[in-house]
Amino acid sequence: MAENTTLGQYLYDCLKAEGITEIFGVPGDYNFSLLDTLEDYDGIEFINGRNELNAGYAADAYARVKGMSALITTFGVGEMSACNAIAGAYSENVPLIHIVGSPKTMMQQEKELAHHTLMDGDFDVFRKVYEHITGYTAILTPENAAREIPAAIQIAKEKKKPVYLVVAIDLVEKPLLSHGKTSENMTKTNVDALQSAVKHIKGMLEHVNKAVLLVDVKTLRYNLQKPVLQLAERLNVPVASLMQGKSGFDESHPQYIGVYGGAFGSKDVTETVEEADLIIAVGAVWSDVNTSKGTAKLNPLKMVEIQPDTLKVGEASYMNVKAEEILNALQDIGYRQNESVGNISFPYDTMVEDPSAPLKATSYYPRIQQMLKENDIVVTETGTFSYGMSQVRLPKGATYIAQGGWQSIGYATPAAFGACIADRNRRVLLFTGDGSIQLTAQEISSMLENGCKPIVFILNNSGYTIEKFLNVKVDIEKQKYNEIPEWNYTKLAEAFGQEAFTARVETNGELDEAITNAQDMNADKLCLIELVVKDQMDAPDYLKKIRQYLEEQEKLK
Amino acid sequence: MAENTTLGQYLYDCLKAEGITEIFGVPGDYNFSLLDTLEDYDGIEFINGRNELNAGYAADAYARVKGMSALITTFGVGEMSACNAIAGAYSENVPLIHIVGSPKTMMQQEKELAHHTLMDGDFDVFRKVYEHITGYTAILTPENAAREIPAAIQIAKEKKKPVYLVVAIDLVEKPLLSHGKTSENMTKTNVDALQSAVKHIKGMLEHVNKAVLLVDVKTLRYNLQKPVLQLAERLNVPVASLMQGKSGFDESHPQYIGVYGGAFGSKDVTETVEEADLIIAVGAVWSDVNTSKGTAKLNPLKMVEIQPDTLKVGEASYMNVKAEEILNALQDIGYRQNESVGNISFPYDTMVEDPSAPLKATSYYPRIQQMLKENDIVVTETGTFSYGMSQVRLPKGATYIAQGGWQSIGYATPAAFGACIADRNRRVLLFTGDGSIQLTAQEISSMLENGCKPIVFILNNSGYTIEKFLNVKVDIEKQKYNEIPEWNYTKLAEAFGQEAFTARVETNGELDEAITNAQDMNADKLCLIELVVKDQMDAPDYLKKIRQYLEEQEKLK
Repeated sequence: MAENTTLGQYLYDCLKAEGITEIFGVPGDYNFSLLDTLEDYDGIEFINGRNELNAGYAADAYARVKGMSALITTFGVGEMSACNAIAGAYSENVPLIHIVGSPKTMMQQEKELAHHTLMDGDFDVFRKVYEHITGYTAILTPENAAREIPAAIQIAKEKKKPVYLVVAIDLVEKPLLSHGKTSENMTKTNVDALQSAVKHIKGMLEHVNKAVLLVDVKTLRYNLQKPVLQLAERLNVPVASLMQGKSGFDESHPQYIGVYGGAFGSKDVTETVEEADLIIAVGAVWSDVNTSKGTAKLNPLKMVEIQPDTLKVGEASYMNVKAEEILNALQDIGYRQNESVGNISFPYDTMVEDPSAPLKATSYYPRIQQMLKENDIVVTETGTFSYGMSQVRLPKGATYIAQGGWQSIGYATPAAFGACIADRNRRVLLFTGDGSIQLTAQEISSMLENGCKPIVFILNNSGYTIEKFLNVKVDIEKQKYNEIPEWNYTKLAEAFGQEAFTARVETNGELDEAITNAQDMNADKLCLIELVVKDQMDAPDYLKKIRQYLEEQEKLK
Repeated sequence: MAENTTLGQYLYDCLKAEGITEIFGVPGDYNFSLLDTLEDYDGIEFINGRNELNAGYAADAYARVKGMSALITTFGVGEMSACNAIAGAYSENVPLIHIVGSPKTMMQQEKELAHHTLMDGDFDVFRKVYEHITGYTAILTPENAAREIPAAIQIAKEKKKPVYLVVAIDLVEKPLLSHGKTSENMTKTNVDALQSAVKHIKGMLEHVNKAVLLVDVKTLRYNLQKPVLQLAERLNVPVASLMQGKSGFDESHPQYIGVYGGAFGSKDVTETVEEADLIIAVGAVWSDVNTSKGTAKLNPLKMVEIQPDTLKVGEASYMNVKAEEILNALQDIGYRQNESVGNISFPYDTMVEDPSAPLKATSYYPRIQQMLKENDIVVTETGTFSYGMSQVRLPKGATYIAQGGWQSIGYATPAAFGACIADRNRRVLLFTGDGSIQLTAQEISSMLENGCKPIVFILNNSGYTIEKFLNVKVDIEKQKYNEIPEWNYTKLAEAFGQEAFTARVETNGELDEAITNAQDMNADKLCLIELVVKDQMDAPDYLKKIRQYLEEQEKLK
């Protein structure tokens, strides 16, 4: 570290060391010194969001692509707008460094009734809010920054949680007063526990004919894709992913069989998983989404559950075993399945050809599956699309971004922006709905402004179709609250002052043409395709089965 | 209360009794039972916002017009998006009832990893977040609802703070199990304190020749306009308002002299206030905004400070004295100023006539002042407009809505929506900037969808001009972070699928024509006028003086 390094410079040094080359945020008069320092700083660019929630969502997706991200907001008004994005990052295990600029130290000490406060002299209240939704919070000073910044980043990295750092505007340009070192308290594997677990699993495998690997979200967050792939190939077992773990395993791989969705997912996958003698689950979160509202039938006694730092074999827990080490150890366990995975068909392999037929889930998902290319980043919104897209087979190297558990509608549009910024060489596709895009539509403007060229699909099915599907108690006609204004989505780019390729399609043939055009044009401009689906209750099979299930539950009452 | 009244119906009964006829919000699968009950309920309509922050802002403004408001969001994702609006209502003393629908009781008891949670089994974490930014929180059950709902509403009414109520989706339709009564713990005036204070003030007035009344924000929130007006007329003293208290006193009244703004405001007002022998301040918040960054020179020894429940006379405090009672008592104190208020001129009384001249603050504010009508609701965004509009003289009966202290940019557009819904018979005017509208532009769509017809002025001065003014340390050219995308603001309505009257004006003459057209047309449709100001550092005098002051402060370092 150079002498006279300021607090702000040191902060950016630490973030740059983690691979962060862009920081999202919105300016405000309490974060000027953070932004001015950044403007003069080499190697990190500031990327304006149109508001703080959107900037937070963008940062979340950026971290999913690049490993970590940062967000700068202003005190009170700025940070309070970003709560949902940060709570979402917490729920979804995304390491995001949230940096807040606060009023001058003197103003805080004198408990002045400053603007952007609750007008009660309390300058610590917003940090207290963030204590509930982050893994760590700290108030930075020149005295503690050299300790607190690395500590916060360490927690973000190890726990995969957002952290919160607040710094008074007058302290950012002050030189660091201590160059204290952080103790790196990374969890280390307990070798005895590892060996016992391997022995335990080896014993179980002696009676196993049909094992299966289940891949979930923490495989992605803890960057375990490679050891999982190696293990799968050594064991020669079928691999399914859970809903939240999509793209944790190469979906073009011959051993990949699809997403496991209990009573709602593809029947073949459900049978393979539920009839297996042993399930090796990696990085699983047993949420209502992943367990398909409790319809998943997974016998814990037949399960090896690998988590980032712990392991469960049947009912036995082994603490302090790093996932990567157990995944590597299992490669040499001497088990190899004889039967290779047969010919698996995926729900959207079959193309519905009739070009004049109106768009339906059965016709547009196969077209989406077909248009995807290697290394695409696929960003999918919560709602109808998230159920359909979960069943689309992704090409090699694809990254799938969705809030599988937190499920905040509006996330995906800013997330697509964040993904574009995270890797300008990869193609980004956004799949969102008419209900959802209205929450955060202005981030289309940010993409246009920053030269991002995603292909955006907006499913226009006249309202919150997902909500209509989930509320089985009341007739749809009575759910006026699930209606939304009918926008001219293809006019958005023009209103945002930019050009884009746009198409509004109602039939299969029109969609084919629009996709062909978008494939050609998306190197040059943002492409926006509005899919008009006239039947507002048309939906992917997965969602229809959920509704059936909920109707049956309702009758049982 | 009817027998078998459900928790949901009782909640709406209580809100209706407070005059609430619309509730804002966004649907989600944990609030269906709240919305279904509301759909069947007579006398309250559900008004969809395009997102929860915007719905919260709209509710805030609704409460400023109607006295109280309510907001319904869903668990986790919905409520976390609304934090800024609720914290803002807290800071600005706005009574807003935030109602959250949460997962089924059983799901919570079993600590399931439900979607929209932090995936840690904690279903109470978001209420804990809200404890920091509301006056009261409660988890409603059929057993406690008859006690908790009135208690929460009572606190909202008395403390003028937002409150938070969360109810599990399966409990909304359950009948109340107890009809407990709330004790109304309204603060009552201590008669001895009241009389002592009156005597104290009477003594002071014996040596006073020039008294002045200062009106601030709590005059509005506690509905004290009428007794303040009566007192002013009885004492025959000049009346100024503080920045946050604008429209607390009838600005067309001959005794009204303008907004007091310390070193930045109108010189005449500053002199009148600072040279007075006695200042009677009503409902004041001594924020940095109201004290003009500390340049206000108000001698506390010459002040009678009337707060909602307390009173300060010089250095003496009198507790438990209701504002209305002291205001009434002072009417009979026997003081009457001889000199009436002379001819006061207001900063924007003078019309700059040259029709071909480009728009400047000196030319468009007088035109705005001239076009305002009695009983208009004027909604002003934080930023350049808030400084200029503070100096515009309002007509009789006008309501002025701005976040004077919290100052969250993006507030005003949804607030204008809320104001339109709160009173469909009054004209609403929105004054916002290009930087600010981009945060929450989708609420233009909500206005169009709900048949609201405000006149919207968008000041297009190429970015966050206010921020450029406030950051005096760095050249404007280096503040890239204060730049924003250049939208086609007049195309927004079309993108939102609706018609509007729009005009983009660059000169005084074009503005005159646009105003004339808008005055004619705003009964039929929403009118949107984009004011293009080419000089990005053109600003109202008030803001220029702030910048001068900040530059001087910077030099002193």
